[in-house]
Amino acid sequence: MIIVMKTNSTAAEIGAVIARVQEAGASPHPIYGVERTVVAVVGETRAIDRALFMQMPGVERITTISAPFKLASRESHPDDTVIRINGVSIGGEEIVVMAGPCSVESRSQLLETAHAVKEAGAQILRGGAFKPRTSPYSFQGMGLKGLEILAEARELYGLYIVTEVMTPEAVPMVAEYADILQIGARNIQNYGLLHAVGRVQRPVLLKRGMMSSMEELLMSAEYILAGGNYRVMLCERGIRTFEKYTRNTFDLNAVPVLKQLSHLPVIADPSHGTGRWDAVPAMARAAIAAGADGLMIEVHPNPAKALSDGPQSLKPKRFAELMRQIKRVAEAVDRTLSTVPESQPAAEPELEPVFA
Amino acid sequence: MIIVMKTNSTAAEIGAVIARVQEAGASPHPIYGVERTVVAVVGETRAIDRALFMQMPGVERITTISAPFKLASRESHPDDTVIRINGVSIGGEEIVVMAGPCSVESRSQLLETAHAVKEAGAQILRGGAFKPRTSPYSFQGMGLKGLEILAEARELYGLYIVTEVMTPEAVPMVAEYADILQIGARNIQNYGLLHAVGRVQRPVLLKRGMMSSMEELLMSAEYILAGGNYRVMLCERGIRTFEKYTRNTFDLNAVPVLKQLSHLPVIADPSHGTGRWDAVPAMARAAIAAGADGLMIEVHPNPAKALSDGPQSLKPKRFAELMRQIKRVAEAVDRTLSTVPESQPAAEPELEPVFA
Amino acid sequence: MIIVMKTNSTAAEIGAVIARVQEAGASPHPIYGVERTVVAVVGETRAIDRALFMQMPGVERITTISAPFKLASRESHPDDTVIRINGVSIGGEEIVVMAGPCSVESRSQLLETAHAVKEAGAQILRGGAFKPRTSPYSFQGMGLKGLEILAEARELYGLYIVTEVMTPEAVPMVAEYADILQIGARNIQNYGLLHAVGRVQRPVLLKRGMMSSMEELLMSAEYILAGGNYRVMLCERGIRTFEKYTRNTFDLNAVPVLKQLSHLPVIADPSHGTGRWDAVPAMARAAIAAGADGLMIEVHPNPAKALSDGPQSLKPKRFAELMRQIKRVAEAVDRTLSTVPESQPAAEPELEPVFA
Amino acid sequence: MIIVMKTNSTAAEIGAVIARVQEAGASPHPIYGVERTVVAVVGETRAIDRALFMQMPGVERITTISAPFKLASRESHPDDTVIRINGVSIGGEEIVVMAGPCSVESRSQLLETAHAVKEAGAQILRGGAFKPRTSPYSFQGMGLKGLEILAEARELYGLYIVTEVMTPEAVPMVAEYADILQIGARNIQNYGLLHAVGRVQRPVLLKRGMMSSMEELLMSAEYILAGGNYRVMLCERGIRTFEKYTRNTFDLNAVPVLKQLSHLPVIADPSHGTGRWDAVPAMARAAIAAGADGLMIEVHPNPAKALSDGPQSLKPKRFAELMRQIKRVAEAVDRTLSTVPESQPAAEPELEPVFA
Repeated sequence: MIIVMKTNSTAAEIGAVIARVQEAGASPHPIYGVERTVVAVVGETRAIDRALFMQMPGVERITTISAPFKLASRESHPDDTVIRINGVSIGGEEIVVMAGPCSVESRSQLLETAHAVKEAGAQILRGGAFKPRTSPYSFQGMGLKGLEILAEARELYGLYIVTEVMTPEAVPMVAEYADILQIGARNIQNYGLLHAVGRVQRPVLLKRGMMSSMEELLMSAEYILAGGNYRVMLCERGIRTFEKYTRNTFDLNAVPVLKQLSHLPVIADPSHGTGRWDAVPAMARAAIAAGADGLMIEVHPNPAKALSDGPQSLKPKRFAELMRQIKRVAEAVDRTLSTVPESQPAAEPELEPVFA
Repeated sequence: MIIVMKTNSTAAEIGAVIARVQEAGASPHPIYGVERTVVAVVGETRAIDRALFMQMPGVERITTISAPFKLASRESHPDDTVIRINGVSIGGEEIVVMAGPCSVESRSQLLETAHAVKEAGAQILRGGAFKPRTSPYSFQGMGLKGLEILAEARELYGLYIVTEVMTPEAVPMVAEYADILQIGARNIQNYGLLHAVGRVQRPVLLKRGMMSSMEELLMSAEYILAGGNYRVMLCERGIRTFEKYTRNTFDLNAVPVLKQLSHLPVIADPSHGTGRWDAVPAMARAAIAAGADGLMIEVHPNPAKALSDGPQSLKPKRFAELMRQIKRVAEAVDRTLSTVPESQPAAEPELEPVFA
Repeated sequence: MIIVMKTNSTAAEIGAVIARVQEAGASPHPIYGVERTVVAVVGETRAIDRALFMQMPGVERITTISAPFKLASRESHPDDTVIRINGVSIGGEEIVVMAGPCSVESRSQLLETAHAVKEAGAQILRGGAFKPRTSPYSFQGMGLKGLEILAEARELYGLYIVTEVMTPEAVPMVAEYADILQIGARNIQNYGLLHAVGRVQRPVLLKRGMMSSMEELLMSAEYILAGGNYRVMLCERGIRTFEKYTRNTFDLNAVPVLKQLSHLPVIADPSHGTGRWDAVPAMARAAIAAGADGLMIEVHPNPAKALSDGPQSLKPKRFAELMRQIKRVAEAVDRTLSTVPESQPAAEPELEPVFA
Repeated sequence: MIIVMKTNSTAAEIGAVIARVQEAGASPHPIYGVERTVVAVVGETRAIDRALFMQMPGVERITTISAPFKLASRESHPDDTVIRINGVSIGGEEIVVMAGPCSVESRSQLLETAHAVKEAGAQILRGGAFKPRTSPYSFQGMGLKGLEILAEARELYGLYIVTEVMTPEAVPMVAEYADILQIGARNIQNYGLLHAVGRVQRPVLLKRGMMSSMEELLMSAEYILAGGNYRVMLCERGIRTFEKYTRNTFDLNAVPVLKQLSHLPVIADPSHGTGRWDAVPAMARAAIAAGADGLMIEVHPNPAKALSDGPQSLKPKRFAELMRQIKRVAEAVDRTLSTVPESQPAAEPELEPVFA
């Protein structure tokens, strides 16, 4: 921590800052510059609140040197974290693909999708039973019934299940049905919920909020890790910017940057990231080329009739084609995707342009 | 709702869209343009999901015409909503000021602040007992003990209490102590919480999220209104942008725009909005000049020792001076602030510049 | 400047950094912390390029302490700069109002507007002769003919003229007709143009770019000041954010913050800032309450037929009403607007709501 | 164009809108809905200014249906534009790589870099002779001398030259030395400059501004195309957002979206896009996987001593390694990069993490 004094700060003001640093259990190192004085603070500064100094007379501002997250940082854990869910490893050499509809809408819709994504090589089935919706008048999800349908799909097709949990009290119930608990972008700073998933033995997929900096994403991961649950995946799914041709701005840069800052696996969700099915294949390939450990892709047997997020869902046939593309890109960056069938299908029709 | 077809869409594709509009219970009006066809949809379109059309062949995009909120809209309720809490009216001619510390830190800190803000003319005391914090290692609030201290201050000074509630299960407890329930910016899309406060008989102060559009703020208000609680105040508290000289970008434009779109009272929080105590007086005056119905201001007897948000808190003496400034501006725009004492104090020291 | 070393940096790497600081003519002060070492650099660091250190082995990042602008800073010039244009002073106690159409469209349109804004109390006439337009197919301004019409209005009504200059080669011509040269938001980093206006003896109104931080605005002012022209006004006119109910997000916080950081006058342009005529009166009043030294307001005799920016223009009658409101707010913050006529007109019709 | 009337608009107001649509040479189609009326405008609406209707009584807002660019649109030109510069084709199956230092700093620096990037397989040499810099105190480029050095490198190594031009008057001089004229991000709306490069016979690389939407980028391209120069490349180089771990947010989504909207080649610049050399290889690979037609990469023989943009420059050895990675990814998406030497070098040291 560096405390920058004002250009006209007095010796008494500097002395008071020095004294308070010492009170806080750290060592002050004043440096007397040409224009101004700064006081460098040495010690375990992560535990010292900046606010202690911010309104002291003569203080201009505070600069922090250490990142505020610790358990999530690569410095604390240099090796990649690999999360194992029975046969699937997330964060290792193998690429993992999570696919399925935005919402569970019916038994037939989910089972048809589950069958298709399994055939195409996905290992994990996604599908929302509880849906956070901007409008109180929109479809809010099937709830417990949706969880039961997901469980049936797991049995039938040997897929693992990732699904969202929205409230602390629902965590035990959802954990009974899901292999991975998803924290949605709108709940990235719902601290009651982060506490709750920090205390269960289920891997967590933590989605970056549309307004969250990478640092805040890592701080929210820190909440879960500090609660005792070390199996956390970070998921990039688009941030909010001024650009309007995509629903969000899928910030793929987060993949290499988060991999440097943290040991946790990084999953990319180009479906929510771009909000346009016609940009999903390109950005899914790009995510693998950038080093993502996995993908989350929305697939729907009939996107035009989907109750949510139809515009960003792929049809099963296009998803299968995408899996073959991803496999090739994965190999070009020395990763594998062993579950994709080798056989090439008949020619795929061209993707038609969409103007969003 | 306007469905824009692609330039090369076929008659069959247009026909399918027309049929689906009819299925959805609305009337289709196709318009055949030079470059392309659009299908206008007439009827109660708020209940029709755009997703029904978005991936139909030949459809390029959908444009909605009606705002998605209804109960919150001024069209549905042309007169201003005035919320009465015993002697205080929010949303009428009178300006209301809510002041106090970010967090309740101790009995003496809160009572000292409560006394000071009451003396200066505030009618409502703010103070957090439950604190959402980015870091799991930061002070998380005093909890129930904090609520009890707030209740004591209400008794002693005749102030009403506004305090944050963070989880659905805490709503009944907080509602027992607070006159106004605050929903914090991070919980603007915590729908479980919005449902819960929609079912209690306590006014709600709903803070705009740092990534929320005004439309989303109104949609979240709609959740509470749709739950049956009509006493909702909207609060502008800063959005996230690229600018770094202020902690957030306090979007004061929301005041006139929300007042036009909605009948609900609008409160401005320049303390969180700017994150700089030295910009608070200017922006508080500006908020009143722009038509805000009230202010929320952070006041702390010793900001340099505050456990949270010290940099944006005013000292009691500066707050008293600000109240006198606000009273003058209120009168210049034909509003009143009857509780501010008339007497002018001795000269105030100049505010010193801060470089954030 | 603070050079932050990596946690695993070696003594040799630290030594190399220290040596290079000395080569650059400054004094290095290494501080050996618990987790890492930082090297504080003392001296005239504004002249030292961060890039000298940024890729040295063992260096993690660089933090700068001093603001990068100097001539524009209040530290270098504690008193407010007051710019005098014959009878008008900008930056003193008096509020100055610049009003007129976005574009000069015809002699009659401009003279009618000039007459109206003069009557209402404006001292400076705005009007674009050269227009930067996003589309090559839009009206690009009347050019020299527009300048001649502006000059005629000056003669007829005793108004001073502010108008935009878009290219370095046009500076002498525009300076011949204009009392104030405007640099538009799109040209905030057109350095050839900043150089050119730095070398003429005409005050400059420098508009913040829609993507410019306040620091960058001050750096662009620094270009003009460094060129020898000290008569620069800063103008806030809205930044680009995710919010779509206003055309831009008018960042009124810039008024108090720029006034603290710099001695230069600050003008607010709520017409471009909000892009909605129905938000202009509220935000104009707010700007004065926040401490702006002046306003720039778009006025058009027939906004519905304006060739540019009609949606944000006020009609003359509404502008006159606004001037009376501004005068009252100015007095409430101890500023004056002596040119506004005292007489109150007949009742103004209510502003109708607009949904943008 | 759709004109949305207010809910309480009168028949006379609707009639006036209909009449004005007819005056403007288009056909009005009123649709009388449950809540409100809309008037659809049919005809060549790209030439009709929205402003004609925006302040008419009873009008709430205007929605445009057609994209505002025409020459740049894929609708007007379905096939990909391929730009040929002697032996190099940009926009076809082959990937093109432009590499070199941010600035030309000296003859030896440039020639050393040119040699290295040629050896590694780049076909085009980048290097700035005129530099737009935020600070007037920073290095502004070598000017004409820099152009001469670039020309020498072209002769020596058979590379084509891309370099920035900053002012209209410099266009002929720079066009004499450069094979491709670069318009920098800060000049994306410098319309004088866009006009000037629209009238020369040199391909143009147009960089997206850090605040530019994709639509605005295409509108700026439209200026050049409308001037008669059809050889325009679009370049994504990062936009400004709230995220601070990268210098800009490299918006790779622009690659698939621009390729759908336009026939022009799309180049990706991950060096400026991310501002971190340690994220450049990942994002360069990603760009190719996403469908970019080429890359612009900063390479410097000694980034730690670069006069500008050192932190985002690769060393020659890392660049060579990157070229081999890119070649593999290109093949995985059925593109080629025929100039990269086949031989694999000795093992590369691991990239060290950077915390920005």
